[in-house]
Amino acid sequence: MKRPIRQSTRKPVIGVMGPAKAGIRELADAKSLGELIARQGWVLLTGGRASGVMDAASEGAKSVPGSLTIGVLPDGKARVSRFVDVAIVTDLGQARNNVNVMSSDVIVACGLGGTGTVSEVALALKAKKTVILLGADMAGVALFKNLAPHLVHAAASPEEAVKLIGDLL
Amino acid sequence: MKRPIRQSTRKPVIGVMGPAKAGIRELADAKSLGELIARQGWVLLTGGRASGVMDAASEGAKSVPGSLTIGVLPDGKARVSRFVDVAIVTDLGQARNNVNVMSSDVIVACGLGGTGTVSEVALALKAKKTVILLGADMAGVALFKNLAPHLVHAAASPEEAVKLIGDLL
Amino acid sequence: MKRPIRQSTRKPVIGVMGPAKAGIRELADAKSLGELIARQGWVLLTGGRASGVMDAASEGAKSVPGSLTIGVLPDGKARVSRFVDVAIVTDLGQARNNVNVMSSDVIVACGLGGTGTVSEVALALKAKKTVILLGADMAGVALFKNLAPHLVHAAASPEEAVKLIGDLL
Amino acid sequence: MKRPIRQSTRKPVIGVMGPAKAGIRELADAKSLGELIARQGWVLLTGGRASGVMDAASEGAKSVPGSLTIGVLPDGKARVSRFVDVAIVTDLGQARNNVNVMSSDVIVACGLGGTGTVSEVALALKAKKTVILLGADMAGVALFKNLAPHLVHAAASPEEAVKLIGDLL
Repeated sequence: MKRPIRQSTRKPVIGVMGPAKAGIRELADAKSLGELIARQGWVLLTGGRASGVMDAASEGAKSVPGSLTIGVLPDGKARVSRFVDVAIVTDLGQARNNVNVMSSDVIVACGLGGTGTVSEVALALKAKKTVILLGADMAGVALFKNLAPHLVHAAASPEEAVKLIGDLL
Repeated sequence: MKRPIRQSTRKPVIGVMGPAKAGIRELADAKSLGELIARQGWVLLTGGRASGVMDAASEGAKSVPGSLTIGVLPDGKARVSRFVDVAIVTDLGQARNNVNVMSSDVIVACGLGGTGTVSEVALALKAKKTVILLGADMAGVALFKNLAPHLVHAAASPEEAVKLIGDLL
Repeated sequence: MKRPIRQSTRKPVIGVMGPAKAGIRELADAKSLGELIARQGWVLLTGGRASGVMDAASEGAKSVPGSLTIGVLPDGKARVSRFVDVAIVTDLGQARNNVNVMSSDVIVACGLGGTGTVSEVALALKAKKTVILLGADMAGVALFKNLAPHLVHAAASPEEAVKLIGDLL
Repeated sequence: MKRPIRQSTRKPVIGVMGPAKAGIRELADAKSLGELIARQGWVLLTGGRASGVMDAASEGAKSVPGSLTIGVLPDGKARVSRFVDVAIVTDLGQARNNVNVMSSDVIVACGLGGTGTVSEVALALKAKKTVILLGADMAGVALFKNLAPHLVHAAASPEEAVKLIGDLL
């Protein structure tokens, strides 16, 4: 891990992806993750809607003064999370998932229980982005590790995920 | 399987997805699949490039007189397969994968060995499209069956895949 | 006009753009244009919806046996013209206008009375595509000729437009 | 102007569009505009590249402490302006112009001398967004006023543009 994965002077952008219909554990993880990311001074990027992992991660980040949250939305009709500072309206439907991963320095997937999240992880790896799977089951981790061994990391907790990101940046 | 998945009078469009760098088995399957699809009078849609599963499926289809092959390309620089009749140039990079699945009535994935293919299967399921996994390993089939039990089918051969499509349309 | 603007062995694709809410003159022009394009053996590409210039051009083309019409649609909810042979569903909203121009060898704009058509002409010129303005007023022709003198042509009739395309291909 | 054009509690996002190859007057206007927008506490959104109007507007905004600049880029290869705080990488080529206008509450076009800018104005009007034409010639203003009389405003200076935005928000 000698060479950092980014050179720019902009703040790192960490994408947090996960299902709109999330379980209690995923929501709690997402909220902690958002808060920890904001505390590091990193920008949080999510799918921007007022539901599930997107909303929880943004809420966590906005509990930190001076935090910045970006929401990349599928279209102009989606309800925007009130914890999103800047809403990017793509009008791309699910193709907006590619914008999310292209705009993030590192992507954290909170659970692999949704087709949208699985597509984002696959698109991220296609774009040679580093992905951290948080709380994923072994089958999911195995599938993606097999596709891109050097880009996929697994984390058991938000703290471990943020520690990993810090080492990677 | 009472209710057909399409109502329009247009010819069915079958999307065949798979890696640009494919193995011998995947290429042979793709070529057979393209030919069988064209023999049914269906339109073949692929990612359009002159390599791998895209190219082989289009080649198979063009061995049938009167066939029609559509290639949905990432950008204007990609080399187009010479077996593609109409090239749709999206200039969308990997987000073009969403166009492929949205434009197909049924999607067949030839192998799950590439991140692009995995993203296409996930996007297809997100869009509630029927997906046939041809020659996929058990881990991949299990992951996607778990995400969308009613939309995911597995086939062991191109013939079985085409039989399945015929039942579904 | 020595160097042809395309080298591929695929059939030329001619994009016909124009408002969904079109006047009688624009509709008649679009229908003639579609028919003349199909008679040349060229593929017709439109925005694919069941209204205005898109629908009329496709109807004209389908009066010719063996013609091929492609419709590039904004999303899966849009009603598809019954004269479209293959529907490409982009799920891109208005950004699909860029797919239309990137996929056409030459673009004909039937009237400049709609914001969508103006955006398509501008995107076409940005992509260095040849554009024929059919029945445009002098202000519109002047604006675009000023932006890209070598790429913009004006035609007074569908016959003149098709003659121009033949010279350009 | 009784009804404000936005209801959300997020900060207004003002999109400033204009050519990458801009003249001295356009660059000076863009820089002033960026600074005035930032002084109002509004977010500046541009095409994000390190050239022309995008770069100048972002530079102006970053001269104001606490300002926020968003750059919506065509792809991951484009050089990002060093005055951009958050880079959204769309990988959409010119279709990213639609993201720019959909994500802005009001759009200001600095000059109409480029095809990209003309496409953005047309896409903005298609999306029913308010557009301010700054320093446009009469032919351009007439064309767009004709297309969407209630959405198009002309301004002679950055100060007048910002005054207009304040009245509209």
